[in-house]
Amino acid sequence: MSASSRKPNIFEIGLDANEANYAPLSPLSFIERAAHIHPDALAVVHGDVRRSWSQTYDRTRMLASALVGHGISKGDTVSVIAANIPELLEAHFGIPMAGAVLNAINTRLDAEAIAFILDHAETRVFMVDPEFSEVARKAIGMSEKKDRLVIDIEDPSFAGGERIGSLTYEEFLQHGRADFEWELPDSEWDAITLNYTSGTTGNPKGVVYHHRGAHLNALAHIVDWGMPHHSVYLWTLPMFHCNGWCFPWTIAANAGVNVCLRAVREEPIFRLIRDEKVSHFCGAPIVLNMLANAPGVSKDFSHDVKVMTAGASPPAAVIGKMEAMGIEVTHVYGLTEVYGPAVISVWKDKWDGLTGDERAALKARQGVSNTALEGLMVADPETLEPVPNDGETLGEIFMRGNNVMRGYLKNPAATEDCFRGGWFASGDLGVMHPDGYVELKDRSKDIIISGGENISSVEVEDVLYKHPAILEAAVVAKPDEKWGETPCAFITLKPGEDADPKGIIEFCRSNMARYKAPKTVVFGPLPKTSTGKIQKFVLREKARTIV
Amino acid sequence: MSASSRKPNIFEIGLDANEANYAPLSPLSFIERAAHIHPDALAVVHGDVRRSWSQTYDRTRMLASALVGHGISKGDTVSVIAANIPELLEAHFGIPMAGAVLNAINTRLDAEAIAFILDHAETRVFMVDPEFSEVARKAIGMSEKKDRLVIDIEDPSFAGGERIGSLTYEEFLQHGRADFEWELPDSEWDAITLNYTSGTTGNPKGVVYHHRGAHLNALAHIVDWGMPHHSVYLWTLPMFHCNGWCFPWTIAANAGVNVCLRAVREEPIFRLIRDEKVSHFCGAPIVLNMLANAPGVSKDFSHDVKVMTAGASPPAAVIGKMEAMGIEVTHVYGLTEVYGPAVISVWKDKWDGLTGDERAALKARQGVSNTALEGLMVADPETLEPVPNDGETLGEIFMRGNNVMRGYLKNPAATEDCFRGGWFASGDLGVMHPDGYVELKDRSKDIIISGGENISSVEVEDVLYKHPAILEAAVVAKPDEKWGETPCAFITLKPGEDADPKGIIEFCRSNMARYKAPKTVVFGPLPKTSTGKIQKFVLREKARTIV
Repeated sequence: MSASSRKPNIFEIGLDANEANYAPLSPLSFIERAAHIHPDALAVVHGDVRRSWSQTYDRTRMLASALVGHGISKGDTVSVIAANIPELLEAHFGIPMAGAVLNAINTRLDAEAIAFILDHAETRVFMVDPEFSEVARKAIGMSEKKDRLVIDIEDPSFAGGERIGSLTYEEFLQHGRADFEWELPDSEWDAITLNYTSGTTGNPKGVVYHHRGAHLNALAHIVDWGMPHHSVYLWTLPMFHCNGWCFPWTIAANAGVNVCLRAVREEPIFRLIRDEKVSHFCGAPIVLNMLANAPGVSKDFSHDVKVMTAGASPPAAVIGKMEAMGIEVTHVYGLTEVYGPAVISVWKDKWDGLTGDERAALKARQGVSNTALEGLMVADPETLEPVPNDGETLGEIFMRGNNVMRGYLKNPAATEDCFRGGWFASGDLGVMHPDGYVELKDRSKDIIISGGENISSVEVEDVLYKHPAILEAAVVAKPDEKWGETPCAFITLKPGEDADPKGIIEFCRSNMARYKAPKTVVFGPLPKTSTGKIQKFVLREKARTIV
Repeated sequence: MSASSRKPNIFEIGLDANEANYAPLSPLSFIERAAHIHPDALAVVHGDVRRSWSQTYDRTRMLASALVGHGISKGDTVSVIAANIPELLEAHFGIPMAGAVLNAINTRLDAEAIAFILDHAETRVFMVDPEFSEVARKAIGMSEKKDRLVIDIEDPSFAGGERIGSLTYEEFLQHGRADFEWELPDSEWDAITLNYTSGTTGNPKGVVYHHRGAHLNALAHIVDWGMPHHSVYLWTLPMFHCNGWCFPWTIAANAGVNVCLRAVREEPIFRLIRDEKVSHFCGAPIVLNMLANAPGVSKDFSHDVKVMTAGASPPAAVIGKMEAMGIEVTHVYGLTEVYGPAVISVWKDKWDGLTGDERAALKARQGVSNTALEGLMVADPETLEPVPNDGETLGEIFMRGNNVMRGYLKNPAATEDCFRGGWFASGDLGVMHPDGYVELKDRSKDIIISGGENISSVEVEDVLYKHPAILEAAVVAKPDEKWGETPCAFITLKPGEDADPKGIIEFCRSNMARYKAPKTVVFGPLPKTSTGKIQKFVLREKARTIV
């Protein structure tokens, strides 16, 4: 494995890799192990459907076998558009077992974007959840390539939806064998999944994950979140989003339970937490916000629950309400390019005694490398010189490690652009605190430059979230003749609450540097992506038109 | 990373490894991460010495830097003979940080064996704990090579011992810098440690571990044992034994506490469990036996403790006594060649309700692959055909995976011999149960063939351990004119207990097939290796001489 012109040392002679002492790292090993050790343990709950690890493993092998029978082999793409249902979970194992690559498609995309993906990924098989059959049919019609197999998933949790394929998922499984002898990939560097980023401009980019990264990041979650065996995981986070942050594989490594969920609403979430004894779930801050402010929904569970959240920092009030319900909040940070969350705001016991606001401020920081990430720095985007650890100097966040993507599919320019000097450039801006914790300040384009001063939109939002009447807030730059740009706040009030723009601006002025306070306040619902991220580019356009 | 004559698929173009998305797996990353995130957290306790992760990381970097300053580089061996003290823990990081290979020497070896190791390993630096300075001095005298640096470790927990080196460990550290910028290995396949097996015949064999295996097996312990962050680990298991089963690296990954221990005695163990709130420790069954039967020692702790034990299966009575103290027993199995334990007897909740004997019988099985081991089978040693999963058919235990050694240093014949058809041949005999759990029956040479029938010495020992007066038992073959061999039992009675051979033989006859009962019973202390294994070859010699 090592060669150079110098004389080999004694450890470099006759001690090579062989099939006994080297196996490619792959998360596929996890499901085989779960089914072997815990065949009867519950693996999947979906409405009335309850399947064990042995049953789930059989179904993934039938899927792999049916795909191979259809002529699918190494490097072929199989796309799936589906809610968080068992079939998409099975796809995370069955498709790579056939040597193929899973492409889970964002269910909020329009037909044009889906058609682009099907063509760009060269999708050979397309599996469709009935809830998305209409948009899928349109996308297939717009796609340039027509020679792909379309499979209809039938799901008891969704009434309606037309059949657009040539057979159903269950019929397809019957073409396969549960005793199919799949093999680990030739190389742990082989592609396992393909995830398109929901870029705000231009065509989406296809992020390629490999077996090695999926294995390591899945295990890192167990180590970093301290997950006990047989954790019960509720699928609030979309599986199409960075492969559900790798949790399909984590839960297999953990021999845990996947509690499926078609739609993210308060009632089923609280019911499933109670009835299935859910121990862990993930979700955007909007999900936490929804649960924290859920009116009239029964929250009758007494066991400990943990939630992992990424994106905007959760406001202190939301964290407080979650903790009062017995739900411990862990803040993480990542991007599609790093397998979901690769940075974790590791909590320290010594912080337990601080006030709610102090704890929220600490928890709001994005944190430190997870166990799989090798390096994390905040640095000058050009020179890659790290900024001082002063919690103030802004720089770009850079990452490196085995949970960084291989690159963008068929996009060498974008791939080359994001890898700089041995690091992955996240495009996010942040600071490094004296204790080595990173705090995200903004995407470069989210910085507001007003009268020559940089204003972090996140900082303004943090203050807005402290206002008792505000449910959600997003701040963007508004072009301004005098100042260049000024902060413009878009706000959703809590039900039954009332506030006026002037009062809110005053509130900001008395809680932060006056020049950072919004000059404009607009009320109304906020546009969001399918993963709950507020679509700032929409708001930016809107701000531009406000006089 | 993948090449063949076929046309590359779309995932094989332009998505290569680079410094941003590939890092060699190494346990060295764990200590850097622990020191970064938890600089002030307690890392090491040794008598009055208490050091944080930051302090410990500094000392490992000073050690690495001093070694490099001395001219040590990639592929050089640094040997250490020491008890479970902080310096040996530091050696697990500092030596590989210099690119070198740690060789931790079994402290029970005689000068001749140590001299052989120093020469065979081509040791360039030799660090010596004062407790072992006499045997080390003799070994150095017997060694053929003389040009190595000898360093004396001074330790407050040991009074006496002569200085045999040219400087002390602390003096040597002062030659190094705490800000030394070490690098990950060129390849994760690079050697990290060298562990000599204590073979019963011939020269010891040098088992080579690599960074990849050490990383993966260390993390597997956290996942498989369900270890929470900041676990407090008591060093009852020798660190020279398979690198303490990889736990120096596990505890760094866990940001836990290493509670050092020079001598394995009841009093300090119970005291440290209580005072330091020890949560985890490992040990041979002899250690459990000692604790379970400790007379007059205070066992006043109320928190949960877990112990991992390997080797002979712990008798039901011992497991029962441990559990009554609040110490949960996990049974594991491995060899030096697989980084210590690679097989774990995973417990299932549904077994909780069984009787003590039933639970002990289940727990006595060696179990299933740990998270790092890829394959485990019981098969015909010649054809490698797996035996039926009937819990009865004897075969050899084979393993494969990333926690299988690279091979034996400078011993191609032994290396070739142990790798067969893509598997590592353990030399141990066992059965595969219908539920996929392996149970060890014997080393090939421990099977007794009497009148053409195979008798498992382990099975006879299991029955003997149920006898209320027996503390320890070992059964070997005794040559016999009529039967070929007969079982001969060597027995240590519990203090104050009394029994005669006839009664013991009768007890066996009424608890198992009569032909399996010992024909001979000998009372007295049992000879043991430094790791607590009963030395059956000594007993076999003894049995040969009994008329």
